[in-house]
Amino acid sequence: MPTSAPPHNRFERRRAETRQALVRAARQILAETGDASVSIQAIAERADVGFGSFYNHFESKAELFDAAVRDALEELGQTFDEHLQGIDDPAELVAAGFRLGVRMADSQPELMQVMRHRGLSHIHSDSGLAARATRDLEAGIASGRFIIADPTIALTALGGSLLALVELRFARPELDGDEAASNLAEMLLRMLGVSPEDARDVARRPLPDLG
Amino acid sequence: MPTSAPPHNRFERRRAETRQALVRAARQILAETGDASVSIQAIAERADVGFGSFYNHFESKAELFDAAVRDALEELGQTFDEHLQGIDDPAELVAAGFRLGVRMADSQPELMQVMRHRGLSHIHSDSGLAARATRDLEAGIASGRFIIADPTIALTALGGSLLALVELRFARPELDGDEAASNLAEMLLRMLGVSPEDARDVARRPLPDLG
Repeated sequence: MPTSAPPHNRFERRRAETRQALVRAARQILAETGDASVSIQAIAERADVGFGSFYNHFESKAELFDAAVRDALEELGQTFDEHLQGIDDPAELVAAGFRLGVRMADSQPELMQVMRHRGLSHIHSDSGLAARATRDLEAGIASGRFIIADPTIALTALGGSLLALVELRFARPELDGDEAASNLAEMLLRMLGVSPEDARDVARRPLPDLG
Repeated sequence: MPTSAPPHNRFERRRAETRQALVRAARQILAETGDASVSIQAIAERADVGFGSFYNHFESKAELFDAAVRDALEELGQTFDEHLQGIDDPAELVAAGFRLGVRMADSQPELMQVMRHRGLSHIHSDSGLAARATRDLEAGIASGRFIIADPTIALTALGGSLLALVELRFARPELDGDEAASNLAEMLLRMLGVSPEDARDVARRPLPDLG
């Protein structure tokens, strides 16, 4: 019986389902309140799994919440990949990312509330959205599209600005989110060394539909 | 007996002291964990005031924590004012603010941990540090130093970037904080329309000592 093929093994499959139910419950809780003070018992109930199952998967509540944020950021990164495929210009990828991000505050509020409440400590992560942004920054530096000394510091500015934009979007729903995102993207492209005229143009190119 | 002169009235003075003790306790708790799940009883004990006193000052725990964040941001704004007085160039004020902010993660960790954990929802506040940043942005636009379409969006980028820098500083203590802050300030000045050469120079001018 191959233990390396979980999908074919009922025990492994159920185990994975239990873990995913716990991660999903933690994501919902983070999205609602940003507050990780809930009891493990309450998380297990929300996930509809036994209390004892928790410790088969996680050593602590902090570990579960960390996994939940990583799960959300990986989903966000994959959503970006799907919608932005075909765009090669790193500048256009950055701008489109900001505009997609603000739209997703409407279309996927749970995901973006997790970002809002917990994203700050994951800006310099080596996975999820941060890894993709680093990839795009490095491609832009290599091609000469971006003129920046330190991609880590550029990532700091992009990540912090995106979180602040998502916060602004949730705090002021009457805001024209797409206009705000384009304005912000235009400024950040100037920051990355793109000319003002080009930044203005790239930040307003037609976007793929989020569906 | 003039009720408008609380310092001369023992009752009013004590009342103000109790409120300040609660705010200070809440600030400490936010700085330690960022987690507002602690009980009102525990906050009152930490503040060394009676449980019943709480509701003389605050309607809810959320109101207290909001007051605590505002208190921290006002203190931060005043610290910036004190140390940056005499600087007239809005570009230099922005750059010096980033460099002071990262130094204060070392010199006033409680204050900056509150920022780190709670600052995001106060970036567009009408008081504290946000009000001062808006003032500097508007002065820079008026004088032609900054070329930006929307000061609210510029504030979004500056505030989010500052929080992300403070987060990076706490997460990676081995980082050269001043170098990181100057790099980030240089990029953000380009974003605000300052020429690359000027941005590089302004972000590295001598700073007043934090003392």
